[in-house]
Amino acid sequence: MSLLDPIHAVLKRTGLDAIALVPGANFLRVFGKDFHQMERPLVVIVPRTGSPAAVVPNLELGSFKPLGFPGEIFDWRDEEGYMEAFLSAGRFLPQLGKGSRVGVEGQRMRVFDFLALQQALPLASFTDAHAVISTVRLHKTPAEVAALREAIRRSELALENTLPQVKVGMTEKDIESILLRELFAAGCDGISFDPIVAAGDNAAKPHASARSDYRIKAGDALLFDYGGRYNHFSADITRTFFVGSVSEHDRAFYETVLAANSKGRAFAKPGLTASAVDDAVCKVLENSQFAAFKRHKTGHGLGLDVHEAPQIMRGNQQVLEPGMIFTIEPGLYRDGEAGVRIEDDVVVTESGIESLTTFPRELRIIGL
Amino acid sequence: MSLLDPIHAVLKRTGLDAIALVPGANFLRVFGKDFHQMERPLVVIVPRTGSPAAVVPNLELGSFKPLGFPGEIFDWRDEEGYMEAFLSAGRFLPQLGKGSRVGVEGQRMRVFDFLALQQALPLASFTDAHAVISTVRLHKTPAEVAALREAIRRSELALENTLPQVKVGMTEKDIESILLRELFAAGCDGISFDPIVAAGDNAAKPHASARSDYRIKAGDALLFDYGGRYNHFSADITRTFFVGSVSEHDRAFYETVLAANSKGRAFAKPGLTASAVDDAVCKVLENSQFAAFKRHKTGHGLGLDVHEAPQIMRGNQQVLEPGMIFTIEPGLYRDGEAGVRIEDDVVVTESGIESLTTFPRELRIIGL
Repeated sequence: MSLLDPIHAVLKRTGLDAIALVPGANFLRVFGKDFHQMERPLVVIVPRTGSPAAVVPNLELGSFKPLGFPGEIFDWRDEEGYMEAFLSAGRFLPQLGKGSRVGVEGQRMRVFDFLALQQALPLASFTDAHAVISTVRLHKTPAEVAALREAIRRSELALENTLPQVKVGMTEKDIESILLRELFAAGCDGISFDPIVAAGDNAAKPHASARSDYRIKAGDALLFDYGGRYNHFSADITRTFFVGSVSEHDRAFYETVLAANSKGRAFAKPGLTASAVDDAVCKVLENSQFAAFKRHKTGHGLGLDVHEAPQIMRGNQQVLEPGMIFTIEPGLYRDGEAGVRIEDDVVVTESGIESLTTFPRELRIIGL
Repeated sequence: MSLLDPIHAVLKRTGLDAIALVPGANFLRVFGKDFHQMERPLVVIVPRTGSPAAVVPNLELGSFKPLGFPGEIFDWRDEEGYMEAFLSAGRFLPQLGKGSRVGVEGQRMRVFDFLALQQALPLASFTDAHAVISTVRLHKTPAEVAALREAIRRSELALENTLPQVKVGMTEKDIESILLRELFAAGCDGISFDPIVAAGDNAAKPHASARSDYRIKAGDALLFDYGGRYNHFSADITRTFFVGSVSEHDRAFYETVLAANSKGRAFAKPGLTASAVDDAVCKVLENSQFAAFKRHKTGHGLGLDVHEAPQIMRGNQQVLEPGMIFTIEPGLYRDGEAGVRIEDDVVVTESGIESLTTFPRELRIIGL
């Protein structure tokens, strides 16, 4: 039993000759610890045969060594730069010569790590193996599900404590600030991403930022897309409320999204493809009077990364299996007017899915 | 006056034929807004001559269009993937053919963006121009200095409110949790990075993580390296305290770091190189009885990115100029025993520097 067993399993399955890992969610899953990614590259190279190598900033050695990395460490100091350590690691891995293929995490590794790695292994060819490397995180352990459940519980408590403080005339920024305070008051140890608190026309932008110059008013949709982190796991929840009152048109708009969300939760189960789930959810939107306002896929995997596999998207033939976690987050967006999204985090069980988010989904008027 | 003037200035200075930008600090400085970087690539390509091009996820169009991007937008939807939009952008930029050179942000752009860009511009050559592109952020405007000053004020208030709550027997995680609550209670709108709250032997690791299984005890060093964000600017502050009591040895250890920090603040001024400042600070440590415990350079630039230019490092011949902001953060680390770091954020003025951090630096005993 080695720390690197999950990576060796990927090497075996893919026929790659090596995998290079950088800090991030896969690294955290494999080594149980993450590192900041700033101006100092840290790269671990795991060859299919032979001993692995790590390029590590000297000032991280004290944090890196206790991980029990079963290979050679090439450290480098600020004053000398990182290139010599990369070259030494390359010489240590002569098996990665002509014709060898090295997989990297394309959505995580940065270009300067990549260029240094290419220089260290000048004869190897490189390929974006992000998806297959990330399969080490595809099935969540019961402890991981429990951590996410706890992150969600704390996040939902924060939202429940935020809503009574929301009043007509507040800015989106005011409300964001309350939500952030409540997330940490509820015991979250980080945030999953900068929250989206968006009202009125801003709610029609799927990834809006809170404005300090817009005051919420009666009739506005008010969308919260946010999450607290707990023990490395990140909740990702969206709920949309209406301020003061709701028009009949907006009510129908909301109910359409809720029907799509409900469809997704009722329909998803092990054995279906991610594509089939997206298709079922999208059809609810596409067969409605609001078909023109659909903008995105149903959801994404969720875990140590806020966006990971499986993508719940037409065309993705990934079969859902117990232990996978993903979001169901249909939305509709009327440019310049309003947006509604309702997002749940669900885990695939033996017979269906369980929604880890339990915050009520019925249309709710707030700010009175 | 165009949004892209700062980028055109870099193109002119470097002779590059184009610069590709991805979301992040440079993007935020240029466009006044940032985007999440997840599984959907968003890349802006600014050629020296001709109209620029942007590859934008369709669901971000509502947020991207108001930026007033003066060029062609190639959007793509989840169900079709991003490659066709990249290829269209490439065809739109025939001037980036054989022999042309495209600069990218090596520390920010990810490999999958890079590979798509290489496919879109198959005849161009690519170079890591992170440092020179980031010069658009090297000199801070008065408004930016004011935002950072406010981020620091709120962050210092949070630390002051945290300290009286710290008691012997608490875990590092307990204390981190208090600090996070106080940061948001003080009105920060984000955190600069996951805080480091490290006691005893953990303080000897420059980038430690808070432990839930270590309880602070009398005589421990207790190091806080943290910062709150305000209006996109990130404070980065380190203070080290002692719990209950301090040994004479640790007092001398602390005073050595403080002397190095003081030296840096007294010595730095416009016209000196970053190298000279690092050298002056390092010499205080290297000429002390604790020389063996030095592990890193003096500091780094600070602004929209928590680590940016100018790196305060021997060998960096960057001349300090008014409006630059950087950290002065000497530290000493006795493996397995204790670590001390004292970090200030300073702005270069016409005649010297001003420390934006004002939290007292004298040795302080807490937890009584």
